[in-house]
Amino acid sequence: VCIDWGTSRLRAYLVGEDGSVHDRRATAQGVMAVAPGAFAAVLEATVGDWRRASPGGIVLMSGMVGSRQGWREAPYAESPAGAAELAGRLVEVDAGGDGRVLIVPGVARRHPDGVPDVMRGEECQILGAAAADDGAPLLYVLPGTHSKWALCQGGRIIWFATFMTGELFAVLCEHSILGRLMAPGDDDAAAFHEGLERGAAEPPLLLRRLFSARTLGLFDEIPAAALRGYLSGLLIGSEIREAELSLGGAPAPRLTVIGASTLAARYRDALERRGYRVAEQPEEVAVAGMLRVAAAAGLW
Amino acid sequence: VCIDWGTSRLRAYLVGEDGSVHDRRATAQGVMAVAPGAFAAVLEATVGDWRRASPGGIVLMSGMVGSRQGWREAPYAESPAGAAELAGRLVEVDAGGDGRVLIVPGVARRHPDGVPDVMRGEECQILGAAAADDGAPLLYVLPGTHSKWALCQGGRIIWFATFMTGELFAVLCEHSILGRLMAPGDDDAAAFHEGLERGAAEPPLLLRRLFSARTLGLFDEIPAAALRGYLSGLLIGSEIREAELSLGGAPAPRLTVIGASTLAARYRDALERRGYRVAEQPEEVAVAGMLRVAAAAGLW
Repeated sequence: VCIDWGTSRLRAYLVGEDGSVHDRRATAQGVMAVAPGAFAAVLEATVGDWRRASPGGIVLMSGMVGSRQGWREAPYAESPAGAAELAGRLVEVDAGGDGRVLIVPGVARRHPDGVPDVMRGEECQILGAAAADDGAPLLYVLPGTHSKWALCQGGRIIWFATFMTGELFAVLCEHSILGRLMAPGDDDAAAFHEGLERGAAEPPLLLRRLFSARTLGLFDEIPAAALRGYLSGLLIGSEIREAELSLGGAPAPRLTVIGASTLAARYRDALERRGYRVAEQPEEVAVAGMLRVAAAAGLW
Repeated sequence: VCIDWGTSRLRAYLVGEDGSVHDRRATAQGVMAVAPGAFAAVLEATVGDWRRASPGGIVLMSGMVGSRQGWREAPYAESPAGAAELAGRLVEVDAGGDGRVLIVPGVARRHPDGVPDVMRGEECQILGAAAADDGAPLLYVLPGTHSKWALCQGGRIIWFATFMTGELFAVLCEHSILGRLMAPGDDDAAAFHEGLERGAAEPPLLLRRLFSARTLGLFDEIPAAALRGYLSGLLIGSEIREAELSLGGAPAPRLTVIGASTLAARYRDALERRGYRVAEQPEEVAVAGMLRVAAAAGLW
């Protein structure tokens, strides 16, 4: 059983001996929705029947379930990290029942300016997507509340960075003056593209440009129903530019977006407009990553 | 009577024939707190006695009272704008009683990328502070929810830009994951300075650096009670760098911060650390600006 147990979602997969997914379940019982001490009960309620059907079977879990607010803290592996490094830091929890229950740790690294960066859960998606890794560094983008960009080489995550794009979009729409002019709707492609262009423009001026989502609305230059799309473009364009600056040098010509949401489609659109060749992988690719970790740990 | 009538505050000044302030009143009846149609009643309740004591006296108002959500919309004067341009666009409202009641318009301009920018109320503070304008361009910084930077020359505002620093700080502390690790307290000078340095570092990477206010907390490298100060520094440092990039060329060696709040003191600290010579003016300097407009309109 593989479980991607994040902040707001729990995604469980029943995986056969051959590595194929036989069944899947998703619930809203993310880490934030689980009371301290109740993780074993939620696991039982979610996949207890799967576990009883395969006595001695292993449960591997990734994501915020291994954070301080999760079931048990699994200390980060330092980047560069691949399946071997993660397998060496698995943390076991007592879930009752027959068979081991293990948490895959997240990955940490330091930016050149000394600031730490972290991921939990994305490392399994990236390692799963990088299964066909041919030796050259490959770039992955995981859109979301806290978007991740990662470089993978030789089966190891050698660089990554986090951007608060999704959360900033949400709090600005819901709680700032920018939301006041917005009418429902966020699929205006022209406004999204205008936002992208301004967001990625040189020099990066995000604090100043955010205000344009108000003034362009005030001056009726962007319709109220297109302002969300504009702000989304402004932030995603800024993220892409910041990621390129963080990576240094010329951007990689191709990359893989992990995720199948509307948001992932927006990122694909944005990245293609900026000249990238974009491949896609579903979030379920996390299972392949967890299996790589299981194999490295001698569990599979 | 001069009134600085903003979004959340109303500040009224009783001004003598010689331009000196004889009395002052501040209330929380900002534009957002006033029901449509109730502006005349609020004016009467706030300064009705002053008006009756000087029959025929003039009331000048600046700020969001002249916005679409205010008493009556006063269309913006285009930058470059000084007292003469503002005086030419005064909008009169019917407030009852004896004496005219006039709204000073805000100022608008376009950035080189075509995005409009606006101010309402700050123009009177800037023109008041620029009374001693010696001909060289002078730089003004008005910290706040939407910080303004402005260049003034020959008594006219020739450039300005808005940065959403204050509002971003507030929504991130109150509504984002960054607030969760924060303990009360925001006056840690070391953390504020560390944030400043990171915020102003090249290249600008705000979306990425915001996440450092989480990871530095997670790794106990900044104490919980210092995280607000760190985030404040990060955002103010970013604003200063963005303002310098927006202005282009070498930064002016001296500037004036308008405002007397704790926030203004932080800006002063931040700007001095970056090498500026900083003067200060209180918000009440708006009265001097309104009097310049009154004089240009032949009202004083």
